[in-house]
This record gives sequence, C-alpha cells and structure tokens, in this order.
Amino acid sequence: MPATLVLLRHGQSTWNAENLFTGWWDAPLSATGEIEAREAGRLMAEAGLAPDVVHTSLQTRAIRTAELALGAMGLSWLPVQRHWRLNERHYGDLTGRDKADTAARYGEDQVHVWRRSYDTPPPPIAADNAHNPNDDRRYADLPPDVLPRSECLADVVDRMLPYWFDRIVPDLAAGRTVLVAAHGNSLRALVKHLDEISDDDIAAVNLPTGVPIVYELDATTMRPPTPGDPLARSLGDPEAVAAAARAVADQAKG
Amino acid sequence: MPATLVLLRHGQSTWNAENLFTGWWDAPLSATGEIEAREAGRLMAEAGLAPDVVHTSLQTRAIRTAELALGAMGLSWLPVQRHWRLNERHYGDLTGRDKADTAARYGEDQVHVWRRSYDTPPPPIAADNAHNPNDDRRYADLPPDVLPRSECLADVVDRMLPYWFDRIVPDLAAGRTVLVAAHGNSLRALVKHLDEISDDDIAAVNLPTGVPIVYELDATTMRPPTPGDPLARSLGDPEAVAAAARAVADQAKG
Repeated sequence: MPATLVLLRHGQSTWNAENLFTGWWDAPLSATGEIEAREAGRLMAEAGLAPDVVHTSLQTRAIRTAELALGAMGLSWLPVQRHWRLNERHYGDLTGRDKADTAARYGEDQVHVWRRSYDTPPPPIAADNAHNPNDDRRYADLPPDVLPRSECLADVVDRMLPYWFDRIVPDLAAGRTVLVAAHGNSLRALVKHLDEISDDDIAAVNLPTGVPIVYELDATTMRPPTPGDPLARSLGDPEAVAAAARAVADQAKG
Repeated sequence: MPATLVLLRHGQSTWNAENLFTGWWDAPLSATGEIEAREAGRLMAEAGLAPDVVHTSLQTRAIRTAELALGAMGLSWLPVQRHWRLNERHYGDLTGRDKADTAARYGEDQVHVWRRSYDTPPPPIAADNAHNPNDDRRYADLPPDVLPRSECLADVVDRMLPYWFDRIVPDLAAGRTVLVAAHGNSLRALVKHLDEISDDDIAAVNLPTGVPIVYELDATTMRPPTPGDPLARSLGDPEAVAAAARAVADQAKG
C-alpha cells in the first residue's frame, strides 16, 4: 500500500508582499496568504485527502497555514508536531533587506548566486542584526552547533533530512497520511530528495504557494515509484499551478 | 519554585449562542467566542504569562481558542498536545437538544439534576442520534470501554484525572508553564481536584469563558499551597469575572 504525503508551502507573508528577504524572521501571513491557506484546505478536501498527522516548522506563517487549511477541512483536532528542521532557509545577513536594494548594492549576479546556487550561503547574520531571531525563545534550547547563522540549500537539505527520516517516515510507515506545512526552501530540499533532483536542476524548481503537492510513496523506499516533476504532483488546475510557480520565480522569492 | 498552570475555558460557541446542549458535538466558536479567545491572549501577555506548552481537548472550540489566544501572544509555535480526556462532558441524549425545550419536556427539576448533580448522568445517547459524534474519525481508536455515551461530572473527573497526572503534571514538574485550553466541565473537574472542592460545592462553581485562571502550584503536591476560590485566581477585572461567571450560571450552560 502506498504511503500518502502532502506538502503545502505557506501562502504569502507580509514580508513576501514587501519584497524582503525573510528566512528565519517570523513574518506572519498576509490577508492574501490566509485566503491561500483556506483554499488549500478546500483543494485537499475536494481531492478526498484526509491527513492523519501534521508536521510544521516553528514559524508562524507555516503554522497558521496548517491551522487555516485544517480548519477549512474540519480537521483542527489532528495531532501536530513542529520543528525548526522544517524552517525556511536562514537568509543570513540578507534577512530583513529589500530584495531590490540588495541587488543594487551587491549586483544582480551576486544576489542570484545567494538565491539559487546550491552551496553558497549568504554572509552570516550579524549578532546585532535587528532581524536576528537567534535569541527567540523558540530556539533557546538549540546549541550553537546547530543554530544556523546563514544557509544555502545544501545546508537546508542536511538539517531537514534527519527530521524526514526520524519523524515523518515513521508516520508514513505506520500507514498515516502526512501533511507537511512548511516553506519554499525546506520543501524544495524535500522534493529534491524524493524526486532525486540534481544539485544543478533544483535551482529551476519553484514550488507554488498554497497548492498541496501529493506524493504516493513506495512504502519500502519511501520515495515515489518513479522520480518526476514535483509540480505535476500538485492539486488544482495545472495551468494555474504552473503560472503560480512562474510568479514565484519571477518575483525572486528564494 | 512554584509551577504555573493556566486554565482557559473556550469562549462562546455557535451552539452556546443557540442555547443547545453541546457536549461532544463539535460546535465551532461563534464570532463572539473568537473575540473572547484573542482577549484571553491579551490578558495573559499583559500579566507576563509565557506558556511553554499547551494542552487542549479534541474539540474545535477549545483548539481554536488556544490558536487565537496564542496567536495574539506571538506564541503560535508552542508545542501542543490534544486529548479526548480534556473534552467537554458528554451530554448523552440531551446532545443537540434545545435547553428550554428539554426543560419543558422533562421538567426544570430533572434538567437541573442532569446539569448540576455530581453523579447523575443524562440518558445515554442513542446510536442513531444525529448528533452522536461517536463515529467521528478522531475517536475511531477509542475502545467502547472508554468512549462515553453520557457523563455526569463524576465521570468527567474520573476520565480527566489520568491525563492530569500522566501528561500535564510531568510538564509542570519539568518547570514548564502549562496552558490548558478546554471546557466548562473538564475544567470544573480539574479545579475541583486542585482546590479540593466537595462533590456538593462544585455544583455552584461556574468558570467564566475566555478568562485565564492562574494557579501557582506547590511543586511537590501539584496543588495550590492553600485551597481557594478558582474565580479569585482569574486574570482581569474581578467584577467583570464575577459577572461573567453569573452569566454562565444564569444561562444554564452546564
């Protein structure tokens, strides 16, 4: 019997709307993002998906997306686990900066490298950066060894996969349908693993916001029977999904 | 060092507003109830309370109360555990009935006994009662031995206390501030235990909705150093709290 995994990237946050690098800053959903989240719940219900458990990051925009989507499905009671390993990529010292200003300051090419290269992180966040969330109570128990100060996608893969193997796979192996409500880059890291996407090719993969992506996984390998295009696994109208993914790419939301 | 426990009774549900016996039926919060929940978060923040963990029932109105209160405090990321043992009292065959109609049908005295006697449950819910939630997926794993068909307050005490001792007390013993978002009767059961209220006297105790009640517990006994009046432990304006509790009593919301 295949194991069903549903990935949901949170909808628009207030900082997405303002074109700021967000990363570990805890920007809430915008009103548009709240609508996207409820619509995601409607899409899941329409598709007959009934999650048994939910995993989210420690960030409000992903948590709230799960709350609203599940509320729309009458499933607010589902057990939920939250963990920093599902957080968005830490954007280092770019956190809180305007994307256009950053391009003007460092050049488009440098910003493109920070946004899309697989293994070049932005400069580490300064301890006195006003948008440094590292003294946030939710991260207080993390030793400095694991608390990121900046991350490239390779770093996100490295810190996300232990959560996948240790916490999500056991739920799937127990026959539970799992919903993961998370972020553009923590979910890119996961689909890279699942669909065996190369370090180069993942740069071109943009996940749409608020659109559930459904994997039917082989219960032994915990990968899809055939690697494919994550976007082709999305619920909803394919053209709308492709347009949403293009919009993400165009808006330089890394 | 004392252990801090915060109890929060959910705000008005749509069925409270319609004067129906609710019990295990999953009525959502009304718009008024949502406002009460956010206000409860504001009261906790103002009092400097910072919960570390949250426990709720499996019922949407308590879950949503916690979501809204924590959202108002910027604490949506807190770990949350949900369990049926924190559910509202099961109202048996009264579930879904209009409170005034029930009084007209059975007499005020009988309804008063069902509402307020410590150990007389209402008639068990019929299997074909349209408001029987027992085939709800969230209760699917409960053996019939524990799934209630009707409950008096004594029954609620019996099924709630194991959760208190096994799941909440360990959090308190670990030094965590605990928020319990639950229901009129599951919380009456808990304050009966904590403040050592007699079977007779608990009938007159009405907890206000949406007002956090704060216990500083002795870390050894896990009871308050001196038994007292639960209402005197409430946050917010004492007169408003007393008025809210009277309103609950007057509206016959058991």
